[in-house]
Amino acid sequence: MAEKKKKKPARLKARLPRGFVDRSPDDIRATDRMMAAIKRVYESYGFQPVETPMFEYTDALGKFLPDQDRPNEGVFSLQDDDEQWMSLRYDLTAPLARHVAENFQELNLPYRTYRAGWVFRNEKPGPGRFRQFMQFDADVVGAPSVQTDAEMCMMMADTMEALGIPRGQYVIRVNNRKVLDGVMEAIGLGGDENAGRRLTVLRAIDKLDRLGIEGVRQLLGEGRWDGGKEGEGDFTPGAGLDERQINSLDRWLGVGAHSASVGYQTPPRTAASSDHRIKNEGSENPFYPYSPLQLDWMSELFEDDLAVSAALSDLKAMQEIFQSSGYGTKRIIVDPSVVRGLEYYTGPVYEAELLFDVTNEKGEKVQFGSVGGGGRYDGLVKRFTGQDVPATGFSIGVSRLMTALKNLDKLPDMGSDAPVLVTVMDKGRIGDYAAMTKALRDGLNAGRRGHNIVAVEMYQGNPNKFGKQLQYADRRGCPLAIIQGSDEMERGIVQVKDLIEGRKQAAAIESNEEWREARPGQFEVDVSDGYDKLIEAIRDRLAEHASERAG
Amino acid sequence: MAEKKKKKPARLKARLPRGFVDRSPDDIRATDRMMAAIKRVYESYGFQPVETPMFEYTDALGKFLPDQDRPNEGVFSLQDDDEQWMSLRYDLTAPLARHVAENFQELNLPYRTYRAGWVFRNEKPGPGRFRQFMQFDADVVGAPSVQTDAEMCMMMADTMEALGIPRGQYVIRVNNRKVLDGVMEAIGLGGDENAGRRLTVLRAIDKLDRLGIEGVRQLLGEGRWDGGKEGEGDFTPGAGLDERQINSLDRWLGVGAHSASVGYQTPPRTAASSDHRIKNEGSENPFYPYSPLQLDWMSELFEDDLAVSAALSDLKAMQEIFQSSGYGTKRIIVDPSVVRGLEYYTGPVYEAELLFDVTNEKGEKVQFGSVGGGGRYDGLVKRFTGQDVPATGFSIGVSRLMTALKNLDKLPDMGSDAPVLVTVMDKGRIGDYAAMTKALRDGLNAGRRGHNIVAVEMYQGNPNKFGKQLQYADRRGCPLAIIQGSDEMERGIVQVKDLIEGRKQAAAIESNEEWREARPGQFEVDVSDGYDKLIEAIRDRLAEHASERAG
Repeated sequence: MAEKKKKKPARLKARLPRGFVDRSPDDIRATDRMMAAIKRVYESYGFQPVETPMFEYTDALGKFLPDQDRPNEGVFSLQDDDEQWMSLRYDLTAPLARHVAENFQELNLPYRTYRAGWVFRNEKPGPGRFRQFMQFDADVVGAPSVQTDAEMCMMMADTMEALGIPRGQYVIRVNNRKVLDGVMEAIGLGGDENAGRRLTVLRAIDKLDRLGIEGVRQLLGEGRWDGGKEGEGDFTPGAGLDERQINSLDRWLGVGAHSASVGYQTPPRTAASSDHRIKNEGSENPFYPYSPLQLDWMSELFEDDLAVSAALSDLKAMQEIFQSSGYGTKRIIVDPSVVRGLEYYTGPVYEAELLFDVTNEKGEKVQFGSVGGGGRYDGLVKRFTGQDVPATGFSIGVSRLMTALKNLDKLPDMGSDAPVLVTVMDKGRIGDYAAMTKALRDGLNAGRRGHNIVAVEMYQGNPNKFGKQLQYADRRGCPLAIIQGSDEMERGIVQVKDLIEGRKQAAAIESNEEWREARPGQFEVDVSDGYDKLIEAIRDRLAEHASERAG
Repeated sequence: MAEKKKKKPARLKARLPRGFVDRSPDDIRATDRMMAAIKRVYESYGFQPVETPMFEYTDALGKFLPDQDRPNEGVFSLQDDDEQWMSLRYDLTAPLARHVAENFQELNLPYRTYRAGWVFRNEKPGPGRFRQFMQFDADVVGAPSVQTDAEMCMMMADTMEALGIPRGQYVIRVNNRKVLDGVMEAIGLGGDENAGRRLTVLRAIDKLDRLGIEGVRQLLGEGRWDGGKEGEGDFTPGAGLDERQINSLDRWLGVGAHSASVGYQTPPRTAASSDHRIKNEGSENPFYPYSPLQLDWMSELFEDDLAVSAALSDLKAMQEIFQSSGYGTKRIIVDPSVVRGLEYYTGPVYEAELLFDVTNEKGEKVQFGSVGGGGRYDGLVKRFTGQDVPATGFSIGVSRLMTALKNLDKLPDMGSDAPVLVTVMDKGRIGDYAAMTKALRDGLNAGRRGHNIVAVEMYQGNPNKFGKQLQYADRRGCPLAIIQGSDEMERGIVQVKDLIEGRKQAAAIESNEEWREARPGQFEVDVSDGYDKLIEAIRDRLAEHASERAG
């Protein structure tokens, strides 16, 4: 064949768009194991997997801005052939609502499902903030009572423990959005015309753990400089509430502090010194979650407001379920500061928080914080069906939870998966080495199941430099290399080189000749009547390595 | 809380963009198990998982058409903030090339990786043709010799068997693109100016199995009507070759037929009557794959053409490896009709084909055909690095392979995963039912691992109509329902209803009262001193169900 006379194309730069990353073998494997553990919990509760595609019509996601015919900038959108806008999903909840509405007649309610998948945000990426990331959701559709919200909270707690996070290192915090809605109504923030301000208020309160009450007060009022002082960082405009309104919300958020005086026991938390909420609050009174007593006290306060009273009763009902099922306040607590920043929640909201300390980018010790959360969203399906469809569910941020497990040293043990390497000493005998590789692979894996694979590979690079083969084995972390040159061939043997033992000595060896003299950390096995003895020898040596690692 | 006075939004239609679908629990679970089996094979060969994100820069995918500043219509593309075009990946090979180029200095070559992931095509969807679908790829980068292509073919064969596809029901077909390149060069299709025509020729030959030699001749010449006759269906323009050129290619494709006269044994195939290639060919001479003898014969024919001779030697070397490793012609054969429709292949190409019959949309019996394939693509990484980087790999179409396994009745047995249902007889005792549910779930799953989860759930719908609860259990396929009304509560027992036995009788029951009288297929268990006896009774009953299913 003659050479192609193509022009050499201009050299391309190999790079990814900002906010997107490749995943390494270790990350993929650890994530897969973590998700398998989570799946086991959801399946044990009778949840089934259901998945939706990456694309939805933009209107189905609710991502058109008012008065615009282009989708919101926060999503990745494009126009289909027929001019309709479609977007990549930005979470797994909106697509589930579409799925439920589309299949409503066929569903067996309550519909209990889970799904893991990639979601996309067309936002400015930053450290730990990606434009593609994975969520793991569980939802129940068609279950109107708060007993289901309680079940979700308990399932989150079980999930934390299934991942090896010790009791006391995590807590599930619960609140009811309707309580806060009632307070906002009371200070004149009801009605359609205040929808935007209510959302700003929710988002401000959602930052209480990070900014403290003073920061939240700024965000409720005129706004806040991100750096904390005027002129430092960007300015975030506030909700524009007046002093009276801000005080009411402050008093509401501080209601737990009041209850301290009625004898409520300090809720279980990490040491006060490590609790950044407390530190940031600038107050002697710790910021206490609700107790049953508080709920009673608040019920009195709001006895004229039927909606708030009902919301408080719901919280009490949930608390009773937690107690009867053995989830005490060490695992699940009711907490007025939990609001979740999304507007679509209509009832209970809940959040899984990790309580151990990490050092943030400013070098401060802070609690690790939220790894997931959710709530009741009775209105999302109604957008399609026109009828009320109760629904509640939560979402776990997969890579954030992975980071937490790394910090806790709770990543599943991957063992060693590096292959046994069959080296190539004689290019003319490739067929023999390939056959040996297959025989070893088949023999070593006969009867093995699950993750316990023994990998065996033949060296596939240029075999001329033997040192390159050993260098490859060394970098891969191969436990053993199998060697059969012409001498060994004639004698009916192979050399098994234990690379765990001999790794250091091998680095200097460059040529086949030099290697033949040195032969570090190795032994011979007879293969004159087949590979059974070799398989046994490899199996023994790998078992020794495993027990050395374990010990 | 007062009612929100929002305007009722216009009712949205719940629907997905064309070519996108939701996935059912059965499909997800079966696909997961299938992929786990494939992964085991790849891992046993020493391949490691590596993944790339959904987006790449469009230029990195090579998807800009010449003389256009908008990407090819076949991909989903959008402009980033900085005006650069990015596209959703349309396969997993181009992103791997980018990944390799970007990390070239750190990679330990040969680099052996696998990955499963969604890919996107912005094309017209059709039956079985989606705009989002899953591929499962394995690649070796940095291995220049055809021994690696041979390894890939053997790994494909092992994968087919790991999925339970019997020997003789699949075959891996292998060819070398350089052989055909030599033939095209010989008939004057060399050079940059003929790149487009060469691609049209490749795509025409790729359709040999579907269209037969006459259809391929039309596509090599002026073109072909999709319906087979003038005016039927759309017209596909051809490569515009003249009679002499077409005859050369025809003779080349028919070279196997010649070799029949030199005594080559008929290769293993399904019965000739079911072989649509043979049927469509319109010739008495079956279309034979290469044998070692043919390769010798062709080597003579092309002894003056060094490139073709080298390509044929490579095929012989691969055949020797297949034979020495015990992959005879029943599993892997060399076949001149395999070209793969993509331009980027530079050497061996290979394809996994399933040989059993299925009925196509026209009601004709045809072989199931290809479920995956690949080849050597030494030029893809060079676009970035400027230096030769040998690479070979293949891709499996996940949903197509799933369809094949369904046809072969080889889908993994999922067992029963429907939950044991704890019913709610008394709304005031939700906490008790929740506690019982947890105790049963914990007890039944203590010590269980892997897929052997026993799901237990409490009924989460409106509990007022007991018949609804049983209807729910019936539709879910629940094996057992646990019932404890006030009577049972007082007596310290629960009723266990075996729904597998009692399912038919239960359909007619509507009210709690009626149920209390009928009590079909059920028994009592004492729970006065805890749930141990109940856990044991459930375990026994589930084991009975399992053995009934198995028997």
